[in-house]
Amino acid sequence: MLRCFSAGESHGRGAFCLLDGFPAGLHVSPDDINAWLAERQKGYGRGGRQRIENDEVDVLAGIRGGVTLGSPILLAVWNRDFANWASAMDPWTPPAGPGAERVVHPRPGHADLVGALKYGHDDCRNVLERASARETAARVAAGALCRRLLAEFGVDLAGHVIQIGPVEADTDSIPSERIRALAVESDVRCCDPAASAAMIDAIRQAKRDKDALGGVVEVRAWSLPPGLGSHVQWDVKIDARIAQAMMSIQAVKGLEVGLGFRGVSRPGSRFHDEIVYSAGPRTGGPYRRATNHAGGTEGGMTTGEELIVRLAKKPIATLMRPLRTVDMDTHESVDALRERSDTCAVAALAVIAECVLATTLAEAFIEKFGGDDLAGMMRSFDSYVASVNER
Amino acid sequence: MLRCFSAGESHGRGAFCLLDGFPAGLHVSPDDINAWLAERQKGYGRGGRQRIENDEVDVLAGIRGGVTLGSPILLAVWNRDFANWASAMDPWTPPAGPGAERVVHPRPGHADLVGALKYGHDDCRNVLERASARETAARVAAGALCRRLLAEFGVDLAGHVIQIGPVEADTDSIPSERIRALAVESDVRCCDPAASAAMIDAIRQAKRDKDALGGVVEVRAWSLPPGLGSHVQWDVKIDARIAQAMMSIQAVKGLEVGLGFRGVSRPGSRFHDEIVYSAGPRTGGPYRRATNHAGGTEGGMTTGEELIVRLAKKPIATLMRPLRTVDMDTHESVDALRERSDTCAVAALAVIAECVLATTLAEAFIEKFGGDDLAGMMRSFDSYVASVNER
Amino acid sequence: MLRCFSAGESHGRGAFCLLDGFPAGLHVSPDDINAWLAERQKGYGRGGRQRIENDEVDVLAGIRGGVTLGSPILLAVWNRDFANWASAMDPWTPPAGPGAERVVHPRPGHADLVGALKYGHDDCRNVLERASARETAARVAAGALCRRLLAEFGVDLAGHVIQIGPVEADTDSIPSERIRALAVESDVRCCDPAASAAMIDAIRQAKRDKDALGGVVEVRAWSLPPGLGSHVQWDVKIDARIAQAMMSIQAVKGLEVGLGFRGVSRPGSRFHDEIVYSAGPRTGGPYRRATNHAGGTEGGMTTGEELIVRLAKKPIATLMRPLRTVDMDTHESVDALRERSDTCAVAALAVIAECVLATTLAEAFIEKFGGDDLAGMMRSFDSYVASVNER
Amino acid sequence: MLRCFSAGESHGRGAFCLLDGFPAGLHVSPDDINAWLAERQKGYGRGGRQRIENDEVDVLAGIRGGVTLGSPILLAVWNRDFANWASAMDPWTPPAGPGAERVVHPRPGHADLVGALKYGHDDCRNVLERASARETAARVAAGALCRRLLAEFGVDLAGHVIQIGPVEADTDSIPSERIRALAVESDVRCCDPAASAAMIDAIRQAKRDKDALGGVVEVRAWSLPPGLGSHVQWDVKIDARIAQAMMSIQAVKGLEVGLGFRGVSRPGSRFHDEIVYSAGPRTGGPYRRATNHAGGTEGGMTTGEELIVRLAKKPIATLMRPLRTVDMDTHESVDALRERSDTCAVAALAVIAECVLATTLAEAFIEKFGGDDLAGMMRSFDSYVASVNER
Repeated sequence: MLRCFSAGESHGRGAFCLLDGFPAGLHVSPDDINAWLAERQKGYGRGGRQRIENDEVDVLAGIRGGVTLGSPILLAVWNRDFANWASAMDPWTPPAGPGAERVVHPRPGHADLVGALKYGHDDCRNVLERASARETAARVAAGALCRRLLAEFGVDLAGHVIQIGPVEADTDSIPSERIRALAVESDVRCCDPAASAAMIDAIRQAKRDKDALGGVVEVRAWSLPPGLGSHVQWDVKIDARIAQAMMSIQAVKGLEVGLGFRGVSRPGSRFHDEIVYSAGPRTGGPYRRATNHAGGTEGGMTTGEELIVRLAKKPIATLMRPLRTVDMDTHESVDALRERSDTCAVAALAVIAECVLATTLAEAFIEKFGGDDLAGMMRSFDSYVASVNER
Repeated sequence: MLRCFSAGESHGRGAFCLLDGFPAGLHVSPDDINAWLAERQKGYGRGGRQRIENDEVDVLAGIRGGVTLGSPILLAVWNRDFANWASAMDPWTPPAGPGAERVVHPRPGHADLVGALKYGHDDCRNVLERASARETAARVAAGALCRRLLAEFGVDLAGHVIQIGPVEADTDSIPSERIRALAVESDVRCCDPAASAAMIDAIRQAKRDKDALGGVVEVRAWSLPPGLGSHVQWDVKIDARIAQAMMSIQAVKGLEVGLGFRGVSRPGSRFHDEIVYSAGPRTGGPYRRATNHAGGTEGGMTTGEELIVRLAKKPIATLMRPLRTVDMDTHESVDALRERSDTCAVAALAVIAECVLATTLAEAFIEKFGGDDLAGMMRSFDSYVASVNER
Repeated sequence: MLRCFSAGESHGRGAFCLLDGFPAGLHVSPDDINAWLAERQKGYGRGGRQRIENDEVDVLAGIRGGVTLGSPILLAVWNRDFANWASAMDPWTPPAGPGAERVVHPRPGHADLVGALKYGHDDCRNVLERASARETAARVAAGALCRRLLAEFGVDLAGHVIQIGPVEADTDSIPSERIRALAVESDVRCCDPAASAAMIDAIRQAKRDKDALGGVVEVRAWSLPPGLGSHVQWDVKIDARIAQAMMSIQAVKGLEVGLGFRGVSRPGSRFHDEIVYSAGPRTGGPYRRATNHAGGTEGGMTTGEELIVRLAKKPIATLMRPLRTVDMDTHESVDALRERSDTCAVAALAVIAECVLATTLAEAFIEKFGGDDLAGMMRSFDSYVASVNER
Repeated sequence: MLRCFSAGESHGRGAFCLLDGFPAGLHVSPDDINAWLAERQKGYGRGGRQRIENDEVDVLAGIRGGVTLGSPILLAVWNRDFANWASAMDPWTPPAGPGAERVVHPRPGHADLVGALKYGHDDCRNVLERASARETAARVAAGALCRRLLAEFGVDLAGHVIQIGPVEADTDSIPSERIRALAVESDVRCCDPAASAAMIDAIRQAKRDKDALGGVVEVRAWSLPPGLGSHVQWDVKIDARIAQAMMSIQAVKGLEVGLGFRGVSRPGSRFHDEIVYSAGPRTGGPYRRATNHAGGTEGGMTTGEELIVRLAKKPIATLMRPLRTVDMDTHESVDALRERSDTCAVAALAVIAECVLATTLAEAFIEKFGGDDLAGMMRSFDSYVASVNER
């Protein structure tokens, strides 16, 4: 049972992640994690914060000598910016100095207002610090470890950008194995060079307009065995768990697996993926699908075909041309607070979503194959894959 | 803590739901549940099974004298069809009689194949019986109770059909309060009469073509307090929980909250909902949104505006013009099994989604306001709503 | 992940248990369950209810043709006595007939009073029906299935009575394998014939005194692999989980593993179990303990030695010589309600505790070895045991 | 929903605790936590480690300006000793320097051997670091916060020592409110001065003998409302949850609530606590028990009487006169490793158990009264207590 929880305020000490139930015996290096932290910070359209922070992981527990112990892993990504906020964010002394003033102009599209109502705060900073997408640094760090685990079983993942604002890319024909190489060449993590250029233009224009852009991201995972997740109970279906994890990422407002919304106008005869046999052995087993409109899941389980998930991200909600809001002390209409922000963070979402999906898949692996140590998982995995290939 | 689990095979004894942690003291009648079971069975395009079954709830535990006890509630919807399957589905004796033959031609788009590989079954019936959407009868029964609970707090919900196959309805301007009345007048639960007629035509044509259709459903919930769910941890965000529950419904392949995918091309200035003040008291509190593109959530919490969720449903995967599959004994290419099936069940999804959303919202209510008994919940709710209206 | 929940009121339709996550492919027969339901009803000192009920399991879901499906298993033990209570316990109509009168004299030692306060009930029957030890029939049924699962791995369990009232047995030297055979020869499930006779005398005298007796029960499990549970997090320690499960059994007020309280006066040098090596292969591995004062756990994990747990059971709380209580309508001091009851149910606890322990161990097996199907579990188990024996 | 997880190796960076779901708005000071960390380190019989460490909490997340935010709270107790172990415990570089040598002589009574088998470690240090009771520093820090929360509702707790080795104290007549003051005057946290002196003598002698001692600890909590926990499902019974938490504390081998094992020889008429009425208002409600043999729980719920729990602690398992064990490389019989250790840590357990109980009770409070913020909890609590006092 893999359990993953984050902690940390955006301008507090750091972003933290506790990963409980991670198997022992996995060899890991700092770069396995730091590489993904760095990827998360990239992308045309990011603001000043990404220049201040240069995220690196600090392992506080659970790894020794480059090997996971089976103990809870506690990861810290310290906030370099904390030095500037120390007196405003001190755990014990009342807020003082820069950042100490109460935030009473909640920003539309953020947790500010609702969080203040729910938790009885009279300072929206007590909400926005936690609700910030800074938290995703913690989840990327955890997800990077999960990627390393999945790699031992041959599983790989890649996320990329499909749409930014009105600009759509055409990437359906790109093989999954090529996505990463293509995506890193683009400043917006888009594999379609023409679309990539247009996206950058759109972001530049949005920045000039003091506006912001959202978009669509796709994540694919491949070389998966069939049978992760289950059809037997609602809360263990793999699509359900992926949806919970993905929709919990800040600013994600929609999710589809395979064709999703794009497939509803098709009749069944042009939607469902026929089953063919092709002797293996392969991880996905000898039964293949002639197409993969389902995106790699049937009945709440992975089919062994590529898992394909798309996410809709709303635009950044902190605009330099601020939206109208209400002063919570006076109830007068005012401009929303302008926190330092990005113009577009869709490229970052491609990385975050990849790492979050890795965490969900690692959880499913551990549940199916046991999670004490890598060697034991590998024995269970190998014998399962062998049994599937004999069917 | 509300926990909801179902059990039951499609041609077994019945569909069952255990609802643990449901508050004591709620007055309920059989019709509170049976009305929704009946709604689930309606809709143009349903097949023969819906004519055999005439679902009614049988309460096995947790309700006495029309009042919930606080004890686990166990609901049964007995399968009238079981009489015909008794010897094929008997718990103890080997399958015999009609339905007893091994299913070795797994149906594309179903759990049949993957479930057989995962669980080591040599008869796909041992999978398909549980994976069947018959299971939703159990969840509708549970959701109907949750609706009754929410109604005590003034919360209401309505689901309706937005699209079937290529036919889209235009329903954005319809007030939520009118949806149910309009939807029940349509044989496909669509509030737009012109679209409704076109949908029926499309289904009729699909049936002629021995094909099947999917579609899009929208569910709205209103009179919600702000602050259900939370921004503090990924797995308690209300959108995340809704997504998990919704994506666990059979055949759902996509979900969006508010504009979702339809909103990604908008710049932030035309997406985010400005905050205005309007003295209450109202359940949603005195802070309103000038628009509701977010669909009623911010930062993983309800805002007090209408909650709007849309689901993409793939076509029914059992076609009368069967898809190609593989014989699991011989590995030869064959036609898939034809189980009795519907041509289109999008209307049913509108009802199911409504009930599933009610369950998720009831869970959030119980978490926020305590869940021992209705009177205690009401005291907590009233004092919270009062405190919000004083902000 | 094995999840087990019960439902049902004592005089309602029946006792029910939902077992979610139980592996597919286990062959079971009705007698595997019914034999333990019958054992639970035995024991000198039981009252009239056990003569009315003759418990048999009815499988409502999850088993077909004598094989588990991997689907949720729903077990029913119908209450034969319900016929006499139908109008008092009807889910929809107000209580009428025998048993319908409000219970306002809460019984000391029962949930009656506190449950009524917590859940806002004005009729203690709405509490006592659920709090009754009748619920253990459901857990015995589930535990019996878990025993069958464990038996596939060679694991066996036996519970027996160590003390009733002031009468203690001397059973430390009895090999675990002989316990069951000896225990069933005793009317109080005690392996020491002299103590058994004295216990029966004590119960007879208590009955004459209109009083009741408690006692101590021991459960042992053997042929366990090392490493069930874990030291890494508090809530997964096997002792912690066993304790939670055991202390949840009605009337259990204490628990110890190994010497427990009896060992606290020993110095460490006479408590701790030295480690010796003895080439296997055996399930417990080649490292043995020279003694087993720890009772089979170290650091929150099974050691491979026998697991030994003792439970303290308070006397039945419904006396024929009733205790004083308070009328909840008038606040006057009155005699407590006399529900039909037993004089001593310690023998039943031995059976119940055995089945509950089996459920906890099955949960740990599934977590460690994966739980999709028996064949897969067996492959993981065999490879783990082999790896342990190579150490 | 309060979730509490620890992380950290004994000679690693520190002991950490993540507390998720803790209410917002609680005023706390460093001393609220540090005072209990200091108490944990006290007690005659502790070894050198307690002189090296001088535990203080460092809040990494969730508290700002002395007020809880509702965000996850991450607490660190940094290990001062880490400086000496940095190269042996480094997350990335192979172990080097002092402490780097592989531990292949597993200590009896510890997790060393079983943990190494389960997780596939060839160095028992990879187990013992996590299994160490150093982890309790993290749980004490979390529990100290929970105590502060409970104090807002008038709930208090006190733990003290009842027995060390063969020396028993007589403390049944001591009022709970006096326990803390008396216990802190004793070097072994025992309220009975004569027993306290004898206990110290026994420890001194054990130390001379290179041996170790265990004992019995009692924790009481008072001013509790009735109805924490529930009778409705096995895993939410308050005794079950307390047992899980308590038995997860290192070296605890037994637990009893109220009379527990000491009560089994009594007949029911001398065990069960009669109910009397005494108009309030009081937190516990107007119904009192004439005695409290049950120790404050009935039917899995708090009764409003004092909650009384006793724990059996085995002796420290690291003896200076080492026990025999096996070399895991050679399978030869050898002496066990001597890690720096205490002679007796029963006094520490009294503090730890108090804090762990506080965490379990805080969890139950949050579940019953909602846990968003203190003000909301207080409103729910007050209205519930008022309703109970009207019964």
